[in-house]
Amino acid sequence: MFMARSEYGFTFSPEGRLFQVEYSLEAIKLGSTAIGVATGQGVIIGVEKRVTSSLLESSSVEKIVEIDAHLGCAMSGLQADARSMIEHARVEAQNHTFHYNEPLRVESCTQAICDLALRFGEGAGGEESIMSRPFGVALLIAGYDEDGPQLYHAEPSGTFYRYDAKAIGSGSEGAQAELQNEYHKSLTLVEAETLVLRTLKQVMEEKLDSKNVQLASVTKEKGFKIYKDEEMAEVVARLGN
Amino acid sequence: MFMARSEYGFTFSPEGRLFQVEYSLEAIKLGSTAIGVATGQGVIIGVEKRVTSSLLESSSVEKIVEIDAHLGCAMSGLQADARSMIEHARVEAQNHTFHYNEPLRVESCTQAICDLALRFGEGAGGEESIMSRPFGVALLIAGYDEDGPQLYHAEPSGTFYRYDAKAIGSGSEGAQAELQNEYHKSLTLVEAETLVLRTLKQVMEEKLDSKNVQLASVTKEKGFKIYKDEEMAEVVARLGN
Amino acid sequence: MFMARSEYGFTFSPEGRLFQVEYSLEAIKLGSTAIGVATGQGVIIGVEKRVTSSLLESSSVEKIVEIDAHLGCAMSGLQADARSMIEHARVEAQNHTFHYNEPLRVESCTQAICDLALRFGEGAGGEESIMSRPFGVALLIAGYDEDGPQLYHAEPSGTFYRYDAKAIGSGSEGAQAELQNEYHKSLTLVEAETLVLRTLKQVMEEKLDSKNVQLASVTKEKGFKIYKDEEMAEVVARLGN
Amino acid sequence: MFMARSEYGFTFSPEGRLFQVEYSLEAIKLGSTAIGVATGQGVIIGVEKRVTSSLLESSSVEKIVEIDAHLGCAMSGLQADARSMIEHARVEAQNHTFHYNEPLRVESCTQAICDLALRFGEGAGGEESIMSRPFGVALLIAGYDEDGPQLYHAEPSGTFYRYDAKAIGSGSEGAQAELQNEYHKSLTLVEAETLVLRTLKQVMEEKLDSKNVQLASVTKEKGFKIYKDEEMAEVVARLGN
Amino acid sequence: MFMARSEYGFTFSPEGRLFQVEYSLEAIKLGSTAIGVATGQGVIIGVEKRVTSSLLESSSVEKIVEIDAHLGCAMSGLQADARSMIEHARVEAQNHTFHYNEPLRVESCTQAICDLALRFGEGAGGEESIMSRPFGVALLIAGYDEDGPQLYHAEPSGTFYRYDAKAIGSGSEGAQAELQNEYHKSLTLVEAETLVLRTLKQVMEEKLDSKNVQLASVTKEKGFKIYKDEEMAEVVARLGN
Amino acid sequence: MFMARSEYGFTFSPEGRLFQVEYSLEAIKLGSTAIGVATGQGVIIGVEKRVTSSLLESSSVEKIVEIDAHLGCAMSGLQADARSMIEHARVEAQNHTFHYNEPLRVESCTQAICDLALRFGEGAGGEESIMSRPFGVALLIAGYDEDGPQLYHAEPSGTFYRYDAKAIGSGSEGAQAELQNEYHKSLTLVEAETLVLRTLKQVMEEKLDSKNVQLASVTKEKGFKIYKDEEMAEVVARLGN
Amino acid sequence: MFMARSEYGFTFSPEGRLFQVEYSLEAIKLGSTAIGVATGQGVIIGVEKRVTSSLLESSSVEKIVEIDAHLGCAMSGLQADARSMIEHARVEAQNHTFHYNEPLRVESCTQAICDLALRFGEGAGGEESIMSRPFGVALLIAGYDEDGPQLYHAEPSGTFYRYDAKAIGSGSEGAQAELQNEYHKSLTLVEAETLVLRTLKQVMEEKLDSKNVQLASVTKEKGFKIYKDEEMAEVVARLGN
Repeated sequence: MFMARSEYGFTFSPEGRLFQVEYSLEAIKLGSTAIGVATGQGVIIGVEKRVTSSLLESSSVEKIVEIDAHLGCAMSGLQADARSMIEHARVEAQNHTFHYNEPLRVESCTQAICDLALRFGEGAGGEESIMSRPFGVALLIAGYDEDGPQLYHAEPSGTFYRYDAKAIGSGSEGAQAELQNEYHKSLTLVEAETLVLRTLKQVMEEKLDSKNVQLASVTKEKGFKIYKDEEMAEVVARLGN
Repeated sequence: MFMARSEYGFTFSPEGRLFQVEYSLEAIKLGSTAIGVATGQGVIIGVEKRVTSSLLESSSVEKIVEIDAHLGCAMSGLQADARSMIEHARVEAQNHTFHYNEPLRVESCTQAICDLALRFGEGAGGEESIMSRPFGVALLIAGYDEDGPQLYHAEPSGTFYRYDAKAIGSGSEGAQAELQNEYHKSLTLVEAETLVLRTLKQVMEEKLDSKNVQLASVTKEKGFKIYKDEEMAEVVARLGN
Repeated sequence: MFMARSEYGFTFSPEGRLFQVEYSLEAIKLGSTAIGVATGQGVIIGVEKRVTSSLLESSSVEKIVEIDAHLGCAMSGLQADARSMIEHARVEAQNHTFHYNEPLRVESCTQAICDLALRFGEGAGGEESIMSRPFGVALLIAGYDEDGPQLYHAEPSGTFYRYDAKAIGSGSEGAQAELQNEYHKSLTLVEAETLVLRTLKQVMEEKLDSKNVQLASVTKEKGFKIYKDEEMAEVVARLGN
Repeated sequence: MFMARSEYGFTFSPEGRLFQVEYSLEAIKLGSTAIGVATGQGVIIGVEKRVTSSLLESSSVEKIVEIDAHLGCAMSGLQADARSMIEHARVEAQNHTFHYNEPLRVESCTQAICDLALRFGEGAGGEESIMSRPFGVALLIAGYDEDGPQLYHAEPSGTFYRYDAKAIGSGSEGAQAELQNEYHKSLTLVEAETLVLRTLKQVMEEKLDSKNVQLASVTKEKGFKIYKDEEMAEVVARLGN
Repeated sequence: MFMARSEYGFTFSPEGRLFQVEYSLEAIKLGSTAIGVATGQGVIIGVEKRVTSSLLESSSVEKIVEIDAHLGCAMSGLQADARSMIEHARVEAQNHTFHYNEPLRVESCTQAICDLALRFGEGAGGEESIMSRPFGVALLIAGYDEDGPQLYHAEPSGTFYRYDAKAIGSGSEGAQAELQNEYHKSLTLVEAETLVLRTLKQVMEEKLDSKNVQLASVTKEKGFKIYKDEEMAEVVARLGN
Repeated sequence: MFMARSEYGFTFSPEGRLFQVEYSLEAIKLGSTAIGVATGQGVIIGVEKRVTSSLLESSSVEKIVEIDAHLGCAMSGLQADARSMIEHARVEAQNHTFHYNEPLRVESCTQAICDLALRFGEGAGGEESIMSRPFGVALLIAGYDEDGPQLYHAEPSGTFYRYDAKAIGSGSEGAQAELQNEYHKSLTLVEAETLVLRTLKQVMEEKLDSKNVQLASVTKEKGFKIYKDEEMAEVVARLGN
Repeated sequence: MFMARSEYGFTFSPEGRLFQVEYSLEAIKLGSTAIGVATGQGVIIGVEKRVTSSLLESSSVEKIVEIDAHLGCAMSGLQADARSMIEHARVEAQNHTFHYNEPLRVESCTQAICDLALRFGEGAGGEESIMSRPFGVALLIAGYDEDGPQLYHAEPSGTFYRYDAKAIGSGSEGAQAELQNEYHKSLTLVEAETLVLRTLKQVMEEKLDSKNVQLASVTKEKGFKIYKDEEMAEVVARLGN
């Protein structure tokens, strides 16, 4: 049966579903795996990098980025879409600091990203119009504020929840099961590093090495920090094989 | 038979129906159950939280929110859609207080939300254009004003009615029957707490505990109040099993 | 055969018909019945309220509303659509009084509502754009001006006529036949009350009581007046059974 | 075969036809009959009123309206569409008188109406955009100016011609044949009254009486004048039976 | 096969054709015949009037109109479309005279009309947007300027050429063949009158008389002149039968 | 298979092709042949004129036009489309001279035309929106600047290249092969005249004479010059038969 | 199955894919081959020119262009699309230098181009609206900044990565395999020249000569430099055969 624009995907199906939003989740399932784990000491986020050629500079595959000194995120899905969302989040964070002289809270940052996500498909020509389709990317947002270290998961639908540990992307199903088994509230940051990498290792098709994964942490003391090559090598070595 | 945009769902079918509005009701039937009960002492609203994973922070699943000191609501359906409606209601409430130096009446608040709901599908680019589809969320609006405690139900169609007791969401059919049997005008607030939780318990698939439900009350004395963890535990305990 | 937007319903069919307007009439046939009777002493309008649950506050089902001190209306069809039309009529009435220091005439009020109805489907983005479909509501407009008491019927097409007595909504066919038989020019206001209620009683599916019907009158002396509960009870009692 | 918006009716078919305009003519064929006859003494226009119920006030069925003191028209087709055209003509007439201190000529008035008719389907959002479809109404415009009494026929296509005698609406075919036989240049105004009514009588389905037809005249001396009830009764009586 | 808006008629077909423009030519082939003949003494244009009823005032069928004192045109196709084009040409002519104190040249006038014709289908809402379809009318533009008497043919596509003699409309094929045989450069104006009328006579379905054809001339001495009734009668008489 | 607007022709097909652009090339293949030859002494451009009737003034068939004193072009395809492009080029040329006091370079002129061509199908209502389809015309742009005489070919796609000799239009295939064989860098301007005409003669369906072809030259000394009738006659005579 | 505009290619397919972006990659596979190789001494980029006729000036086939003194790019795909992107990059580069008095970094330049690429299909009429489809071109961006010589690959999707060596266009598959085998970090600039040309030679259909390929280099000392004819001849000679 034929269904024209507004019906198909952007508006409710007879069963009350919004297909474009559901399809965008499929785009994320095609993405590389990203994992976050929140502990009392801080949050660890880790991603798989798909380095498809030895001539590709793996450092230019950026799946973990900084939003503010105390905020960063890991992404899975369309890299170009993520740039818009993250740029938006950075501006929000800077505006907040400028106006209120305090860092943007992790939940507020997540909500700002989700409000942007919600606006797809809105009126043509309006200044708030962003995209003619949902964003094809999910984010794991890690940050530290007065409520301590926090991990949020933001979906293309504009829905967000806080998690202790969460996996997204092509390997998310297996990874989430692993996290469910292994996570406990008293994990140290170092144990979280290991948990993230070990879980990635289980779901990646390629053999994990210090070039095709990336870690970052958010702690009260150091804020958001992407691991340097030697730090990565050290954690990978710790995994053994 | 083919039907293009304006015909299908947004305009009248040959039988005089608006399908997009009807489909949005289906989206709400997929949502978690929410229940409201109005008594002479105040209104109790309660919701089921779907905590799909033990790693999900149940406090980040917000299905009951404050609108103003004397006004709050429970929602069922698309969480992200509800954010827009509630944000709109909050602004209306604050504007009213600012201009008239009195709290916004419960019915006026409900009507403001419903006027927003009515505007979907309006002219592209206009400042009043909100959504290209109906909102996929229903609200139970609870408040207290000079007419006493009141409970309103607002639908995606922009229709609203006042109820003594009302259930929405996936378990609404069974819950409403239960309310019909159990409600009487002389219920105390404490009895209403119990009625809401007991009814939720009957229609929830998961076993009810103090993490996967949430209550709030509106009374003359304390205004809108979301139950704290210990208050929740106390009411749940009262249910027995 | 395929017919795209502009052809189907909004523009002329090969037989010279406008289907969307015809379909909107179907929406009204799904609505509750409303009846108006004009006498030399004043106009009586009455409606059936569909109180689908004993927990629903019947007073929040508003099918009769005031437009101005000397003007009111009964509606059948989509309640939310009616709100826009009546809001528009109220503003027109107040503007008229403000500018000319005289009440808006009943015919002028009706025409203002119908001009609004005519504008559906107009250019996107223009300030006159109201709706992307016809209004799904018909009104019986009752008022009193220098020409005496008058009753008008306004259709979604923007057409309006003056009637001595008129029924709209799901029971309109049977009710109109009854009115045709019973109406005479010398009816008193009290006889008109009885005629309206008795006719409603014949076409309502539920048993008529003082909660599920509503009356209002417009007279020279008292203007527009919605019957209070005790007045309703008194007229219902007069019907006998 | 599929034909999208711009092709179907609004643009040329392969045979060089504009279907929407042709379909709007069908809408007029569904309308009540209207007849105009121009004589040296003045113009008579007459219409059939479809009074579908004895409870309908026949005076509220307005198919003949004044445009200016020396100009009026009879309509057939969609009553609500006609209101826009006539409102436009009235404004043109008043503007002309204001700017040039002379009455608007009959042909200029007709052209102003036809220019409006031509603009349907024009660019969305532009200030000249009037309708998304052709008007579904035809007019017989009667007036008096320095060229004497004149009768014009304006079609939805924006085409207009001057006629000695012209019938439009559902009975136009039979009526036009009758006019062709009976018209001659030396008709008096009284003979024209009789010709118009007698022709209406032949094509009306209902029995003609002084309630379901309406006459108006335009003469040099009295300008545009709608016949009063007693005048109508007198002409109807003259017809005999 | 389905073809949506932009493809069908408005954009190139796989064979490189623009169907809407081709279809508009069909609309012209349905129109009445018009003929122009240019001589050294001036240009004669003549048209067939379709007087479908004896009650129609043939003088209100205007197929030849003045643009400026030295410029006029004959049309074939949709009369209402022609009004827009001619109005545009008149304004161009007056602006030119106002700004440069000299009459608009015949070729410039033709180009101004064709530039308007080219703009159909352009961006909605823009100030230059004229029509959502090509004009359904062709013009024969006759004028006199410093280059002497000239005849131009303007098509809906915006293409124009200068001709010694040209026929358009339903009888154009036969008429053009006749012109090809009979035209020579040394025709006098009187001979051209006869040639135009004789050619119209051959292709008209009705019998030619002084009411159903119209002539006009453009000469250096008298500019543009539509023949009066007695002048028409004189030329028709000259034809014999 | 159905393909809606954006897919069909305006956006990429699954094979990565833009069909509307390809179809516009077909429109050019239906056009009359045009040929350009660049020599060290200057550029010669020549076109076939299709004079379909002896009554058509061949001088009004303009397929070669001046852009600036040192720049001109020959066209093949839709004449009316070309007018827009050439008007744009003329304005660019005059603006350049005004701002920089030097003539516009040939390549810059070509690029300005191609930038215009690229903009088809752009956002409705924007000031840069030109056409809803690609231009259906190709140009051979001939000019002289500090780099000497140059010939450019501009396609509807906005692509342009410089050529020593190039043929476009319906006879282009045969003509290009001939040019390939006969062109050499040391051609004199007179030899180029002959080469252009001889090549046109080979591919034209009609017999070439001095009325149905046109030549122009661009040289350092005389700039752009369209051949007068006697010059044309002289070159045609030189061809012999 | 039918899929309307927003669904087909521009929005997510049920599998989470964006077909228009995928199809644009096909357009690039139809393009000529371009190759870039980054060494410690600088970057070499080389392209195949498709010189389809000996009469075509090969210098007007520009597939390598300068962006700034230290930045240039090679393209494969639609030449006219590339012009917009490169113009945008040039403006960005000049603005950066003007505002910050330092050259634009290679990664920033690449990102500016990719941000433009991302914006296709955005709201009609907005000032940021660029194209109604993705760009049909891929770029190899070569530059030198404080991080040394760098090579980036920018796709129509707005995704970009840094490479040591990368091939795009119709021969990219074979060329990339060759680069993978032959590339090592210690290549000299001269060895890179040879590698680029030898790889092009292997994948070109025509025999490589100094007219149908083009090289450019970016080095710290000389910035961006397109090879002159004699330099090209010298490198081609070095290849032997």
